[in-house]
Amino acid sequence: MSVKFYSKDNLRFLLHEVFPISELCKRERFKEHTVESLDMVLEAADSLSTNELRPILVEMDTKPPYLENGRIKVHPKMRQLMKTFGDDGWISMAAPQEFGGQQVPFTVLQATGFIMGAANYSTMAFPFLTTGAAHLIEAFATKELQETYIPKMFSGEWQGTMALTEPGAGSSLSDIVSSAAPTDKGYYLVKGQKIFISCGDHDACDNFVHLMLARIEGAPAGTKGISLFIVPRMRPEANGSLTFNDVNTAGAFHKMGYHGAPIAHLIMGEANDCRAWLVGEPHKGLSYMFQMMNEARIGVGCNAVSIASAAYYNSLDYANVRTQGRKITEKDPLKAQIPIIEHADVKRLLLFQKAMVEGALSLVFEATTCLDNYATLTGEEKETNFLILELLTPIVKSYPAEMSILTTSAALQCFGGYGYTKEFMAELFFRETRIHALHEGTTAIHGMDLLGRKMMMQNGKATILLMQRIMEDIKASQKYESLKGYGNELAQKIMKLQEVTMHLVTVAQNQGPEVYLSDATLFLELFSILAIGWQWIKQGIKVEELKLSGTKVYRAEFLQSKIYALQYFFEYEVPKTEGLIVRLKSENHVTVVARAEEIL
Amino acid sequence: MSVKFYSKDNLRFLLHEVFPISELCKRERFKEHTVESLDMVLEAADSLSTNELRPILVEMDTKPPYLENGRIKVHPKMRQLMKTFGDDGWISMAAPQEFGGQQVPFTVLQATGFIMGAANYSTMAFPFLTTGAAHLIEAFATKELQETYIPKMFSGEWQGTMALTEPGAGSSLSDIVSSAAPTDKGYYLVKGQKIFISCGDHDACDNFVHLMLARIEGAPAGTKGISLFIVPRMRPEANGSLTFNDVNTAGAFHKMGYHGAPIAHLIMGEANDCRAWLVGEPHKGLSYMFQMMNEARIGVGCNAVSIASAAYYNSLDYANVRTQGRKITEKDPLKAQIPIIEHADVKRLLLFQKAMVEGALSLVFEATTCLDNYATLTGEEKETNFLILELLTPIVKSYPAEMSILTTSAALQCFGGYGYTKEFMAELFFRETRIHALHEGTTAIHGMDLLGRKMMMQNGKATILLMQRIMEDIKASQKYESLKGYGNELAQKIMKLQEVTMHLVTVAQNQGPEVYLSDATLFLELFSILAIGWQWIKQGIKVEELKLSGTKVYRAEFLQSKIYALQYFFEYEVPKTEGLIVRLKSENHVTVVARAEEIL
Repeated sequence: MSVKFYSKDNLRFLLHEVFPISELCKRERFKEHTVESLDMVLEAADSLSTNELRPILVEMDTKPPYLENGRIKVHPKMRQLMKTFGDDGWISMAAPQEFGGQQVPFTVLQATGFIMGAANYSTMAFPFLTTGAAHLIEAFATKELQETYIPKMFSGEWQGTMALTEPGAGSSLSDIVSSAAPTDKGYYLVKGQKIFISCGDHDACDNFVHLMLARIEGAPAGTKGISLFIVPRMRPEANGSLTFNDVNTAGAFHKMGYHGAPIAHLIMGEANDCRAWLVGEPHKGLSYMFQMMNEARIGVGCNAVSIASAAYYNSLDYANVRTQGRKITEKDPLKAQIPIIEHADVKRLLLFQKAMVEGALSLVFEATTCLDNYATLTGEEKETNFLILELLTPIVKSYPAEMSILTTSAALQCFGGYGYTKEFMAELFFRETRIHALHEGTTAIHGMDLLGRKMMMQNGKATILLMQRIMEDIKASQKYESLKGYGNELAQKIMKLQEVTMHLVTVAQNQGPEVYLSDATLFLELFSILAIGWQWIKQGIKVEELKLSGTKVYRAEFLQSKIYALQYFFEYEVPKTEGLIVRLKSENHVTVVARAEEIL
Repeated sequence: MSVKFYSKDNLRFLLHEVFPISELCKRERFKEHTVESLDMVLEAADSLSTNELRPILVEMDTKPPYLENGRIKVHPKMRQLMKTFGDDGWISMAAPQEFGGQQVPFTVLQATGFIMGAANYSTMAFPFLTTGAAHLIEAFATKELQETYIPKMFSGEWQGTMALTEPGAGSSLSDIVSSAAPTDKGYYLVKGQKIFISCGDHDACDNFVHLMLARIEGAPAGTKGISLFIVPRMRPEANGSLTFNDVNTAGAFHKMGYHGAPIAHLIMGEANDCRAWLVGEPHKGLSYMFQMMNEARIGVGCNAVSIASAAYYNSLDYANVRTQGRKITEKDPLKAQIPIIEHADVKRLLLFQKAMVEGALSLVFEATTCLDNYATLTGEEKETNFLILELLTPIVKSYPAEMSILTTSAALQCFGGYGYTKEFMAELFFRETRIHALHEGTTAIHGMDLLGRKMMMQNGKATILLMQRIMEDIKASQKYESLKGYGNELAQKIMKLQEVTMHLVTVAQNQGPEVYLSDATLFLELFSILAIGWQWIKQGIKVEELKLSGTKVYRAEFLQSKIYALQYFFEYEVPKTEGLIVRLKSENHVTVVARAEEIL
């Protein structure tokens, strides 16, 4: 079993050089932190991940959650882990001090999530879901609700969840039918079914705090009539006791992977006694939800990178020790076999993974930095970071999710026939990561978000601002012989992206929104490749700067490995934009024209 | 659960129009067959698949094979199925009449395998492995060995296997170390370990006939010292009784999918009493194996198409009934939700699958037709078919295998969150098909086979012959307005393929074989896309001919669906060649240059 599941060198490189957390420590909100103290947080995440999370990964996979007497049972270790996540401050880490948090930058929170996710994705889902749910309560609920729920959530005793999806309302959230009837007692009575609720029920916590979307009776149809409620499984009484709140567990979904975390089907209000407390104002639930969606979506992208990282180091370890075959030029069959990493195609499979993992993780931190900047800067800078974050979010969410399907498959391929067996965990990561292109919005939804909303926001202002940033980095790359050509390549491709966008705008005008958005997923892919190319240029500049500085903080091999991964990305991935551009400019719209009955 | 797992219309279209089996029935070898009798064989395969194989698919998945008291147990239904496969002539179908076979064309055998594989891939592995092993015995073993083994194999009582891989010899077969010591009793005594032996042990048959590669003591090193043996688990004695032949089952591999079929780890000769009978001449084992490898490799490609087909119809059924969201132009949230097949991106996911499944199945039959022609024609025609088959084999094996990873993933994506659950079988097909890029040679091995061997055979004669065939079809396509542009597109891309090939030949001359072959996998992908494009042009021509003929054999929607799939392929898949060509012409060879210690 592989021990290494991420690269500490790489994390240091990203957080000290490319996105220096030292900058964040200067901000008022983060002033109590130093680079050293934040590094210690990452060290602690590493210890927890190595000593507690990774050792139970395979066992969790072989023993998925199950329903027993109407409740879901998870791995017995989870209860102790939830206590650790609470006691040691992991759940509250980024929260404001007024709620008992430590005001750690979101970038560092996400980095800890990356480490834990690489060790054992399922285990980190529990605390991060609670953090996300608590964040909504922090931002929009009354002080009374905050005091009732947040401490128990931060202690790890109560699990927070997001209860959005219903059997008839997945991608189409506007079709939510769960209802909320007002009472004169300060709460509502809800009725409804929620499915795919991650950590929606289990035996590692004492209570569940569902952040639930429902319609108040008489609310407008569609997205404008959805409200947000706190719906506890056990409602806290004035005397501190807990009363069952009519939230029943109808089932646990059996999944392909991600077996450590339970996904519940919940039924609220079967006995007409499910009390719910409104968060914020009526009918504004979806807008509240979206205000924290960016974080959740960065989280999903980051989790996909985590699993891809685990798969990468797993396959890299194997490729270095497994011997098979000889160099093509070696004709003597009596010569010893060589480690498979010596074969060009295996190197290709490895560099593909490395280029994706390190490129996408860099983009994750680009996004978290925007979020931290947005939270701590003012005026135009705040606005700029907000807009760029909005634009990057569908990319950060989706591209790692989609690519991790391919990189974990490449990792599996490195193992040959063993990759298909349970012997080396390769197939586990392949199964595990497939969830990410589905939850928090499918890739298609994000394609439409990017092309249909984000590109158009404020007359394309976000795109202009992002392109400025990218062009600045391309300019900086021109100083270095190793980067110059690739920088130019990226600049040309950015121009082509703009051409494609203009073409599509014309399509929208002439042929309407359906044709315009019909290849939004491909547009997302095109934009994503260029965004990752940008991250590699950024990293390349830092590598060259470090080389010139003569620093010994990073090994020469590490810096060289960055240059090779950059080369791989520009040589093998950026060319894929050629075909995407051809497609996006085509006048054939078969996916719009073909009628349902003509696909058979 | 979806009932439809393949399209009868499509199979008829391919075997009656594009690769007419009526042509094969004219040959001496197949003269006892008619189109009607062969259609009945396909009907029988359909019944068996629908009534016996598909119903146990999910149960087999949930109850994988396991080791008990040194033997592997499989699904209890398998024993009865093996009897059916034997009694009803499925195992012997394509064998010569002298061995009790029916001399059915290989094309039809493969078509039955396609149907069964789409229903339940694991179940068809058992009989097809026996067929393959028996084929080797038919071709190269003595009459005595033939009489001893073939009848019991054809009856389904004895399982045939291919015992090639060893712990240290997978992709590198030249490193086989299993040994065979001659005796003066007409047999050898073998010692060795074999891993990944499909159906190598189970309780659905009474005996196992391993076609095993081993080295006779003193044999030359490398591939030139490998011999082929029959190694039964129980050896038949003169009186008809069976004696244990010292073949022990060391384990059953636990796999990600493909759970109905056991994969065994076998140990031969622990007690120094494992008798083996030489097949053919000493040291020629690998060449015998390769003579039947083409069939096995077409089989793998076909199996990948089977699973992709099952996944496609599963997702198509779902997309037609699952409602979610509304047309982008529909702003009224009170309007009913629409079936998801109405959304352009879902149509894209479906057309992707359809274009792959029907394009790749067509290429499978292109290859089987070559094989049937090779077996029944003479002189130059025989040679031409042999050479084209050699060239197509790595493509037929690998492209469906690789693409089915993506198409089953696309199928899963159609289900949204449900795709990740066990509710609709989507995740089952995704797990199931991943084996195909690994067994019978990984994709990298086939890339090197194509670029390193097949392109070069007889000074590129195979390529020239294939290109002639393709250009003839392109010429025929020019008559039809719907195909003209795509035909020209293909012709241009074929020219670019030739340019790339010439470029690579120069690379080989200047930089040696390692650089030459370093992107062989990408070259394989490029060639494959054009090969599938060719198949779509061929199908398109038949569609237009049928339209003009006014036939009512095919529904108009079926013919139109073919045109849309063709359009999809040329609009979305063929453009991918652009990036591949850029890459293959690049002078950067990072996967050769980067040293192992610089990938970290």
